[in-house]
Amino acid sequence: MQARIGDLAALLGGELIGDPDHTVVRIGPLERAGADTIGFLANPRYQSQLAASAAGCVIVAPAMREAAAARGAAIVVADPYLAYARLSQWWAAQGRERPAAGVHASAVVEPGARVAPGAAIGALAFVGAGAVVEDGAIVSAQAHVGENAFVGAGTRLMPRSMLSFGCRIGARGIVHGGAVIGADGFGFAPEAGRWTKIEQLGAVWIGDDVEIGANTCVDRGALEDTFIDDGVKIDNLVQIAHNVRIGAHTAFAGCSAVAGSTRIGSRCTIGGAANIVGHLDICDGVHISAATLVTASIRKPGHYTGVFPCDEHASWEKNAATLKHLHSLRERLRALEKKTS
Amino acid sequence: MQARIGDLAALLGGELIGDPDHTVVRIGPLERAGADTIGFLANPRYQSQLAASAAGCVIVAPAMREAAAARGAAIVVADPYLAYARLSQWWAAQGRERPAAGVHASAVVEPGARVAPGAAIGALAFVGAGAVVEDGAIVSAQAHVGENAFVGAGTRLMPRSMLSFGCRIGARGIVHGGAVIGADGFGFAPEAGRWTKIEQLGAVWIGDDVEIGANTCVDRGALEDTFIDDGVKIDNLVQIAHNVRIGAHTAFAGCSAVAGSTRIGSRCTIGGAANIVGHLDICDGVHISAATLVTASIRKPGHYTGVFPCDEHASWEKNAATLKHLHSLRERLRALEKKTS
Amino acid sequence: MQARIGDLAALLGGELIGDPDHTVVRIGPLERAGADTIGFLANPRYQSQLAASAAGCVIVAPAMREAAAARGAAIVVADPYLAYARLSQWWAAQGRERPAAGVHASAVVEPGARVAPGAAIGALAFVGAGAVVEDGAIVSAQAHVGENAFVGAGTRLMPRSMLSFGCRIGARGIVHGGAVIGADGFGFAPEAGRWTKIEQLGAVWIGDDVEIGANTCVDRGALEDTFIDDGVKIDNLVQIAHNVRIGAHTAFAGCSAVAGSTRIGSRCTIGGAANIVGHLDICDGVHISAATLVTASIRKPGHYTGVFPCDEHASWEKNAATLKHLHSLRERLRALEKKTS
Repeated sequence: MQARIGDLAALLGGELIGDPDHTVVRIGPLERAGADTIGFLANPRYQSQLAASAAGCVIVAPAMREAAAARGAAIVVADPYLAYARLSQWWAAQGRERPAAGVHASAVVEPGARVAPGAAIGALAFVGAGAVVEDGAIVSAQAHVGENAFVGAGTRLMPRSMLSFGCRIGARGIVHGGAVIGADGFGFAPEAGRWTKIEQLGAVWIGDDVEIGANTCVDRGALEDTFIDDGVKIDNLVQIAHNVRIGAHTAFAGCSAVAGSTRIGSRCTIGGAANIVGHLDICDGVHISAATLVTASIRKPGHYTGVFPCDEHASWEKNAATLKHLHSLRERLRALEKKTS
Repeated sequence: MQARIGDLAALLGGELIGDPDHTVVRIGPLERAGADTIGFLANPRYQSQLAASAAGCVIVAPAMREAAAARGAAIVVADPYLAYARLSQWWAAQGRERPAAGVHASAVVEPGARVAPGAAIGALAFVGAGAVVEDGAIVSAQAHVGENAFVGAGTRLMPRSMLSFGCRIGARGIVHGGAVIGADGFGFAPEAGRWTKIEQLGAVWIGDDVEIGANTCVDRGALEDTFIDDGVKIDNLVQIAHNVRIGAHTAFAGCSAVAGSTRIGSRCTIGGAANIVGHLDICDGVHISAATLVTASIRKPGHYTGVFPCDEHASWEKNAATLKHLHSLRERLRALEKKTS
Repeated sequence: MQARIGDLAALLGGELIGDPDHTVVRIGPLERAGADTIGFLANPRYQSQLAASAAGCVIVAPAMREAAAARGAAIVVADPYLAYARLSQWWAAQGRERPAAGVHASAVVEPGARVAPGAAIGALAFVGAGAVVEDGAIVSAQAHVGENAFVGAGTRLMPRSMLSFGCRIGARGIVHGGAVIGADGFGFAPEAGRWTKIEQLGAVWIGDDVEIGANTCVDRGALEDTFIDDGVKIDNLVQIAHNVRIGAHTAFAGCSAVAGSTRIGSRCTIGGAANIVGHLDICDGVHISAATLVTASIRKPGHYTGVFPCDEHASWEKNAATLKHLHSLRERLRALEKKTS
């Protein structure tokens, strides 16, 4: 694969500085780029990398035009990071082959399933009775579409991913390997020291343009559907419990989790390994730090954190031991204040 | 699907108030229920929802009989939540088709496996040599039963779940998609700065009525079997390490983990994302809060917690910074107390 | 299976005390061993178990020779734990059948894949076009090797594991069930309140002698490869994000996670459920405690911790409430110090 930088400038709608016929063969980080590489400077903090870079072309913001031009070829765009995203999409589209439409001979498509002619069903994949796979969708090798499930147009179920019976994902989605959409929510009624199962009668409803990471789980609802709105992005190993509702364009980093029946607003970000307990309301525009546990509803947009700071073990040990007496320290301080007042 | 509420009252062993011939077509939450819906009030705190609900029938406790009768049809039972659980089971049994017994043409059952005539082996499933699948068990599409593994009567391995070679699950269990039972425990001996693998010679032994969540891992033992007793319920993305022993009817919420060789008693509950380190003893009746790390054995039943409280980021930052000096604060307080005494 | 202890002493290069013709049929823990069992004492702390054990033979360090000889048969070696590891490997090699070389009739090997004659491709496994599976490698039942992926000599992909397109694992590795190597890294550029996908153009490069746990995820790099050096051991349910680089012989316990672009040195150990945020540098020889969040680079070898200590819930509650005012407590203490100085 190779590309003329003149063509890339046109693709990105940017201003080209330099020879349009110069060709590049990869996108790369500035600090390890050669003449055959196009790089980008998204963060002005790394401006020093720009001057030092041997990249054949760099994508920069208008504020960096002079610095970039002094160095060599450049494409000037309003938002270099977004331009990089678009360039990566173009690059992947050129370099990766789309599977051919049709059903692989080794796949099992049960009678009563409806697979659009432009969809691709890969080797050893399973599509259950009554399922619908719309045009341009890809059910990759060894993936699973359960009975009466629905895969929207252009959505890609990657190898070994799973959309359980009765669940639905809209258009242009991606479900990565090992993701399980529609396992039973975790519901039991106590009965004389044992657990009696509550069958999960709902399913999972996922909107358009949603990406779901590898080995992530989204459970089916107890009575109604677990609901994930358009544009939500979920990383790997995330747990979305039953009855959860997630607003549009919210993003979950890896290993985060939301317990049952919690509602999360739009355009939130949930940090890696953060956990949100059940039956809460989190409003729009909330940002939760990594490894934070949220135990109460949040009604004000903002940034929330709860993490014990990391320290050398010996220091931590002393402080942690004191922490077990913090309440009494406060009492002693109060007594002292009284005494000296 | 539809049901006469007279029949449902008989099913649940409850007292019917209202017209037995009224029919409902779904179970639903009180606040969004119509005349064709049966709801339930399990928590007296939500009593206000009862009067406002348009549900065709409600399941209530004896204390709510008057309030429910004033509203319309009702079924009065001792434990409405348990009645709901039973109703959900009945509903699922009516509404969902059981796979037919027999082996799907695309499944691979190795010579020497023993599949009971009443068991169902789904599309693209694998059953290894020497494995036993008992009557009424279901090995769903793309599921895996390793060599010499044992699946008890009526147990369901959901699509893409896995019971590794030599492992055993008893009767009436459920293993959800992506669960891996019987991968190697994590054991290595250090040798000159490298790790030498300790082969895991044990397996996994699971009792009756156990449910294991999606993408959960239960590792095989180093020398003896990892052991999970009857009635244990494990949610998604849980890690049960090698040699762990879990007592009957204990429940693990999502993303929790237990490290190697720890023993956990009966009827414990482990909160979401809680972690228990290795080689501990946790007695019966212990309840661990979400996101808590347990680092010492617990010999007294009760409720245990260790979580940094979530706060607005700016407040957290000030408190966390101070926390790094907590031990010295205590010293200063002590000095002050001495001085003013 | 059975073994003469004379043969085992020779295998382990140890000194035999006792009758070389005594046979054992299993390796077992000292406290539950009988005459047909060989055990080991790795930790002098458990010396009391030695005298009490009925094991037919024990593996001990030179310091324990007298105590062991007083009890019965023994094998004396410099490092009993390492000897146990080697014995476990020998035992597994005797007791477990290696799958026969060749491609199972139900597997799908796409045209253009290159499978060495001595490799084994299991039932319902998938090997994509252009993939290479070297000699002695095992692609187990239902496992997945994507297009142009590479599986080194002697490496075992366990059932239902996955090596995505273009990814590479070296020789003698093990990838456990459900592991997903090479899903997309989590990268998006914000664009008017939505997320624009950054295609992940790199892959995953894994060295020799690497073990990867069940349901663990290793994401492909954004521009270059995610990199895992020789001898790294990763437990279950671990998340390794895109562009991460991990030095040789580092080990990750279950449920730990590393966010994007972080570099971790050699011979580190990362505790269970520990998390390391993105874009950090962690030097060689760093040990992170379980459940600790690392938010800054670490440039000094050592042991680091950050965990709220677990306590009875009522005590925790009082201390946690006070923690929200810790900064003001410090201010009050300072004021008091001033006043009384």
